[in-house]
Amino acid sequence: MQKQILPYLKEMPKGLNGNGIQHKTVKGSVYKSKQKSRRQRWNIRPSEMSINTLNPIRAIVDGMKLTPNPEKPMIALSIGDPTVFGNLPTDEKVTQALKDAIDSNKYNGYAPSVELEDIQTSKNLLLSSLQDVVLTSGCSQAIDLAITVLCNPGDNILIPCPGFSLYKTLAVSLGIQVKLYNLLPEKSWEVDLQHMESLIDDRTTCLIINNPSNPCGSVYSKEHLKNVLSVASKNCIPILADEIYGDMVFPGCKYQSMASLSSDVPILACGGLAKRWLVPGWRMGWILIHDRNQIFGKEIRQGLVKLSQRILGACTIVQGAIESILNDTPQEFYYRTISFLKSNSEICFSELSTVPGLTPVLPAGAMYLMVGIEMEHFPEFQNDVQFTEHLVTEQSVFCLPATAFEYPNYFRIVVTVPEEMMVEACARIREFCQRHYRPCSQDSNELDQ
Amino acid sequence: MQKQILPYLKEMPKGLNGNGIQHKTVKGSVYKSKQKSRRQRWNIRPSEMSINTLNPIRAIVDGMKLTPNPEKPMIALSIGDPTVFGNLPTDEKVTQALKDAIDSNKYNGYAPSVELEDIQTSKNLLLSSLQDVVLTSGCSQAIDLAITVLCNPGDNILIPCPGFSLYKTLAVSLGIQVKLYNLLPEKSWEVDLQHMESLIDDRTTCLIINNPSNPCGSVYSKEHLKNVLSVASKNCIPILADEIYGDMVFPGCKYQSMASLSSDVPILACGGLAKRWLVPGWRMGWILIHDRNQIFGKEIRQGLVKLSQRILGACTIVQGAIESILNDTPQEFYYRTISFLKSNSEICFSELSTVPGLTPVLPAGAMYLMVGIEMEHFPEFQNDVQFTEHLVTEQSVFCLPATAFEYPNYFRIVVTVPEEMMVEACARIREFCQRHYRPCSQDSNELDQ
Ligand SMILES: Cc1ncc(COP(=O)(O)O)c(C=O)c1O
Ligand SMILES: Cc1ncc(COP(=O)(O)O)c(C=O)c1O
Repeated sequence: MQKQILPYLKEMPKGLNGNGIQHKTVKGSVYKSKQKSRRQRWNIRPSEMSINTLNPIRAIVDGMKLTPNPEKPMIALSIGDPTVFGNLPTDEKVTQALKDAIDSNKYNGYAPSVELEDIQTSKNLLLSSLQDVVLTSGCSQAIDLAITVLCNPGDNILIPCPGFSLYKTLAVSLGIQVKLYNLLPEKSWEVDLQHMESLIDDRTTCLIINNPSNPCGSVYSKEHLKNVLSVASKNCIPILADEIYGDMVFPGCKYQSMASLSSDVPILACGGLAKRWLVPGWRMGWILIHDRNQIFGKEIRQGLVKLSQRILGACTIVQGAIESILNDTPQEFYYRTISFLKSNSEICFSELSTVPGLTPVLPAGAMYLMVGIEMEHFPEFQNDVQFTEHLVTEQSVFCLPATAFEYPNYFRIVVTVPEEMMVEACARIREFCQRHYRPCSQDSNELDQ
Repeated sequence: MQKQILPYLKEMPKGLNGNGIQHKTVKGSVYKSKQKSRRQRWNIRPSEMSINTLNPIRAIVDGMKLTPNPEKPMIALSIGDPTVFGNLPTDEKVTQALKDAIDSNKYNGYAPSVELEDIQTSKNLLLSSLQDVVLTSGCSQAIDLAITVLCNPGDNILIPCPGFSLYKTLAVSLGIQVKLYNLLPEKSWEVDLQHMESLIDDRTTCLIINNPSNPCGSVYSKEHLKNVLSVASKNCIPILADEIYGDMVFPGCKYQSMASLSSDVPILACGGLAKRWLVPGWRMGWILIHDRNQIFGKEIRQGLVKLSQRILGACTIVQGAIESILNDTPQEFYYRTISFLKSNSEICFSELSTVPGLTPVLPAGAMYLMVGIEMEHFPEFQNDVQFTEHLVTEQSVFCLPATAFEYPNYFRIVVTVPEEMMVEACARIREFCQRHYRPCSQDSNELDQ
């Protein structure tokens, strides 16, 4: 698409053809002495902030040699965009809501980015801890604003490991330190609470909890969430709950929002339309401010309002459709999506469970599955990056090495691909592992050589 | 609209009803001594950045007593949103393009925010200085990214006075200093070049030029733009050209983009759909990187790419429609809009020209008109804020005091209102001024009393 903008945009420079006048820079002229300290030559450097905006996924993937086997069509299990294969369209009601918003002609102008609900004066006071909704450009901007309002340069935030890379990208670019708390694969990726608490110091200003999780596909129980809240409460740390996969949990499992369990800990719950409604490109996100005990108070709210007005993130057409999207999308749509994700996850998990050297972890929600690599059984490869690189070279299957989530020796599989691709990909992964697997004892290693 | 989200969002906290367990904070417990330095009580403060995000318009307007005269219906000439009165709808082709993008089902996924045109290898090299297009959430985010990539805390940027308030809001929140260069009302708001140049020092990293201008409605001649470019070139300062009102110039006047005239000065040209296509809510903006002489080089481009990937601003549905919007919108639509704005400007200008104590400046484009107040003739009012406040109290007409643009003793009129409202508003302004005007000499003042 963007290619096609260029003809229009190029019109402008074309006007220069023939008209272009060379402005010679008058170096060392009479003006020079008059001036304080003007630059003598061009020397434009990108800012520290742009230099410090690092995308680990890009850094790792760009550094990989990704040359697929020409004899096998490529299968990408790496892309966290459920729309790419066309097998998971959004619901017609959702697109219809957007068209209705267009036709109404009511949603072309500027709109406020904030719903200021003066809940104190409302009779819902005791039922609800939700005060305000800040609309944002995707959940990404929600996270950006939440971190930005809570933290100053030099503060630190606690983020999950493995975890979605944006938290660190945003924090580091803002001069905020990150401390990684461990998730425990053997406990379905629950938080290592002791480890988490041990990281807290007096500059810790935010605890990020991502539930359901990217990259783990884990969904926390009510009990576990309460334990997390206890740590936050005891240490007086507010929570940024990244709940973009909220409600995307498999049948038999229940999603519980952090805010529904908190009696005192104030929570910025970040969400959006991207995943559950399968429209990540629409860039519609939000922050729900939960502050039952008035701990954020007016100031944090006011700060978020001001930050959200800097660039006014959310497209009004989508804003105009959101009521209908939230309320009128048929339950079968959600059910169909979730059933598909569960089924694909189970196929993937059961296939890979019997592959030598791999330890997949069964997910309970979201759209991902993490697979451990017993590196000692794959002596040809130094790490998950090399392992997944060779998986592309030989089998044309690409999985994201979990080093991108600060979690080496795992890789992440996206389970939104069509079922037959999932089956084929698993078969190829099996073939790959069977070829490269080496039993561990010294003897067998020698026998192999 | 946003009101209606709440019922859905409130569901979550409702779950707490009955389940809510009070986690008592264990203060001074046995755990305390084990811990390094955990917080003993809640103390959440908004960040410096959010505190330093100041919106002068809000600050001024919120401080005003705006109680309209109950006998006259309110006329707001203050809102820079052309959609509010319904008299300036966007073109049907524009909304149709959006619906086509929805129906294509191709624009629901994530999209790259950047078109990297490797112009060096193309034969357009000599014709065009445009290398890349970065898509953003409105022109506001374009300006945000452009400032952010060029400036570090402690640097300074030059901004017009009077000028759009966002420049200062963004810069100050990022720790970047602003220096205001004067525009000259007597020269149709041309830049005071000498003054501008005198402000440049070795920490000046960006010169912002807004043409056509908010709040002035001025449009610069080719010659004047070349003079501005000379100053930038001589001092080796890149330009941020805010051209959101590009091509919105009245018949008889020609709009020239900065980049079309620059032979060496690298330019970040910020634009968007908001004004010309009358859809500010859609949040579609862009940065065009013009760098004929490779002065920005790869690094600034790369910096912008990285910054634009933090939150991925632009809604893909609008992205999917943009080619058609740029190329297929009928000329008559643009012509109709511009003719209306010109006609309304002329009505307003000629009406106010004969009002005692006011000095309107005729605009040549955009959607604004600045009016000087000869304060010495209105001794009852201390400044433009009091003047416009009383204009509301007595005449129910609200114009933005230009103190909001750092330019006291002027006010700004938005000329997008329906013609009959413009006429009525001008009549009321006349009545107001006639009542409060005082001739200046001591004698006549005494006679009046
Ligand atoms: C855990 C998590 N949070 C936030 C986001 C960003 O969501 P959005 O596309 O709405 O910005 C993602 C996207 O993949 C994610 O996985
Ligand atoms: C001069 C100027 N630049 C930028 C903007 C912001 O445009 P957008 O709504 O696309 O963010 C405005 C909006 O009024 C403006 O007047």
